[in-house]
Amino acid sequence: MDSQIPFPRLALIGVGYIGGSAALAARRAGLVGAVVGCDVNPESCRQGRARGVLDDVAESPAAAVAGASLVLLAAPVGSLSGLITSIAGHLVPSATVIDVGSVKLPVVVQADSVLPSGAFVACHPMAGAEHVGVAAADPDIFSGRLCYLCPGTRTRAEAVTAATRFWEGVGCQVARLDAALHDQLMAAVSHLPHVAAYALAGCLGQVLPLVEANAMPGGPTTSLRDTLRIAASSPQVWRDIFLANRDHLLPLVVALEQQVHALGKAMANGDAKALEAALISGQANRRRLLK
Amino acid sequence: MDSQIPFPRLALIGVGYIGGSAALAARRAGLVGAVVGCDVNPESCRQGRARGVLDDVAESPAAAVAGASLVLLAAPVGSLSGLITSIAGHLVPSATVIDVGSVKLPVVVQADSVLPSGAFVACHPMAGAEHVGVAAADPDIFSGRLCYLCPGTRTRAEAVTAATRFWEGVGCQVARLDAALHDQLMAAVSHLPHVAAYALAGCLGQVLPLVEANAMPGGPTTSLRDTLRIAASSPQVWRDIFLANRDHLLPLVVALEQQVHALGKAMANGDAKALEAALISGQANRRRLLK
Repeated sequence: MDSQIPFPRLALIGVGYIGGSAALAARRAGLVGAVVGCDVNPESCRQGRARGVLDDVAESPAAAVAGASLVLLAAPVGSLSGLITSIAGHLVPSATVIDVGSVKLPVVVQADSVLPSGAFVACHPMAGAEHVGVAAADPDIFSGRLCYLCPGTRTRAEAVTAATRFWEGVGCQVARLDAALHDQLMAAVSHLPHVAAYALAGCLGQVLPLVEANAMPGGPTTSLRDTLRIAASSPQVWRDIFLANRDHLLPLVVALEQQVHALGKAMANGDAKALEAALISGQANRRRLLK
Repeated sequence: MDSQIPFPRLALIGVGYIGGSAALAARRAGLVGAVVGCDVNPESCRQGRARGVLDDVAESPAAAVAGASLVLLAAPVGSLSGLITSIAGHLVPSATVIDVGSVKLPVVVQADSVLPSGAFVACHPMAGAEHVGVAAADPDIFSGRLCYLCPGTRTRAEAVTAATRFWEGVGCQVARLDAALHDQLMAAVSHLPHVAAYALAGCLGQVLPLVEANAMPGGPTTSLRDTLRIAASSPQVWRDIFLANRDHLLPLVVALEQQVHALGKAMANGDAKALEAALISGQANRRRLLK
């Protein structure tokens, strides 16, 4: 085994789009040696081999992490707690464990309690989320993208160094953020937009016959295409994110519902002034949010 | 005056982004000779001259259309009724009148009653809607884009021919559609996405301090950027569109509100099954809508 390789053995738990992309990028950058994968769906492991992501497949998360210098948890957020528990007794002492989840506080709390070695560094690379499955894995998605690191109170400094080396090695820009603040921020800038996109896509079910009977030459409007883009994301991934971050997300969902209601009310009342004021406010918010 | 020019004199009523872009594109394509503009805001006319859109400025819509072979109404939808009334007695007999509004039935009904010469062809070029103001005018935005034509019961065949020549000349692909059907279709694929984007932008006002205090290196998420893109659109333009098309739009706004409510309820109840089912349904709808 080449001692120049930072992580001679990578265990990839959850062989999907993000994990597969990270493993491919790490391999290309010379960060990892052998990559062993494990997924609840055997087909994902088969595709992971075919896509060049995996060298080996393990029967269980515990078997996958045996001898691994780096463990990448890339399964849906809702499964992380169980995974951390199941690998806890099987890690080598120097192993670093990282994840890619979009919600950080619950997993930080769980890892702090179950992995007393301080091996875990909560990570959130913000890249390419609407694709699904390892077949779509793409090593270029991290280039120049932000990756938040949210170390817990017990996380070892060496683990943070290892996590930083990994994410910078695949092309990310790394920034540290408190886990609770991360979750609050993501509820606003990522999770609520997904709620809006899924809600829009959901309620348009009733107009599918109309839209399909009047297919627009050249394809649908760019308005529809852009607002619905992230509704292509994995329902299982986002079910878990919404539930894991509901304490921060729910007040915003209620506010979104109220805002839609207020726009509808202004239309129903023919209240041009109220409608214009709401749109002006939204336009101004957008400018500040995106600057 | 060169008789080879299809429209020796173009009157542009409403000197903004779409009208300015159309006039620039028409001039470049050799479709129009002199362009005379008129706008409620004198500053728009000044910018229109500076941008090379206008050769002349008229004091009133009636003065602008005098001698014009083509009249392009590019003012917000809510002002079209008044404009049509004010120009009705001042058109030359052979003039064609077109518009660019996103709602067609009200203007078709009004023009059929007020312009008995059948000069009016309701048009909807689907291009570049989130930009605001003639300074941003861009003659390339129509290239390959769809333009719906919704002639009324009294529209002259020659007017349809002239409108087709104009829009195809600036690069559009022209398609005919019944005005009511157009409005129903747009409520779904364009107007409701704008409601969703403005509502999302509106309710995020409460998190501006959080987002601004934790500015993300490299800028905000692409999720936020894409879902909010069209909330940059003109509040005045969209106030008018929402009100003009509210009969078709309101039932969809109510459905959107219910969908947001249902997602929030599933989160609050920790109902993973209901949440996943809603997201799967939204994802499937999106695939059918965008194919």
